[in-house]
Amino acid sequence: MATETTGETADEPTPGCTDGLAYDVFGRDCPSRDALRHITDRWGSLTLGALLDGTFRFNELRRRVAGVSEKMLAQTLHALERDGLVHREAQQTNPPRVDYALTPLGDQIARQLRLLIDLVEDRMPQVLQAREHYDAQRTAE
Amino acid sequence: MATETTGETADEPTPGCTDGLAYDVFGRDCPSRDALRHITDRWGSLTLGALLDGTFRFNELRRRVAGVSEKMLAQTLHALERDGLVHREAQQTNPPRVDYALTPLGDQIARQLRLLIDLVEDRMPQVLQAREHYDAQRTAE
Repeated sequence: MATETTGETADEPTPGCTDGLAYDVFGRDCPSRDALRHITDRWGSLTLGALLDGTFRFNELRRRVAGVSEKMLAQTLHALERDGLVHREAQQTNPPRVDYALTPLGDQIARQLRLLIDLVEDRMPQVLQAREHYDAQRTAE
Repeated sequence: MATETTGETADEPTPGCTDGLAYDVFGRDCPSRDALRHITDRWGSLTLGALLDGTFRFNELRRRVAGVSEKMLAQTLHALERDGLVHREAQQTNPPRVDYALTPLGDQIARQLRLLIDLVEDRMPQVLQAREHYDAQRTAE
């Protein structure tokens, strides 16, 4: 493992992944489960979605991802940076400023995520109708 | 609102959505944000992914979504059922059994989600390489 860190790892057994060969989010300890969670959790999904629009400074991003706390946004950016999806660049200006942008990998994943978000937004009338129906039945019981 | 529950609601102002007209997950109180969270959170995403393979009983589903507690799976199925994505059917058998399956809407959304999961699984070698690089830099600092 230590001598081969740049190549394809799909042929080596991967601890925690279902058959020990392929990454599988259904494997309890497969690292792909963590990665998916960083991408899709409450703030991760909105942060990636926002960064599809370009480069942001921390406070700009915080305004765009309405409702996120400073601490949660910092944690979210950390996890996405560590997973190689977000690039953090400290500018040598006075005062110093830090820009956040998607990496090429982050851009690929954020685009796929955006298709899911678009579909969910598009289907919201059906979702709200289902909620109304469900709640009305519960009240009637 | 009370007289019109079956039609398209996109022309009516939607409280909490960014411009009051379209559903937008960036709107702090837009109901689409909740729906996205139910679909993409830790157990929601795995439950929808599992149900793409067919109909499951509760305990079958619990084994497939390895690591989920009984309580969390019940909560997850509840939220997905209320949003109209999962259909719950109690069979009149002895002992009684309950089957869970995707609705047509749930199937559409789960397929789109599965494309995201496939992409993440496929890119895991890059993600793990990024993590290694990030951690090595932190250790060196």
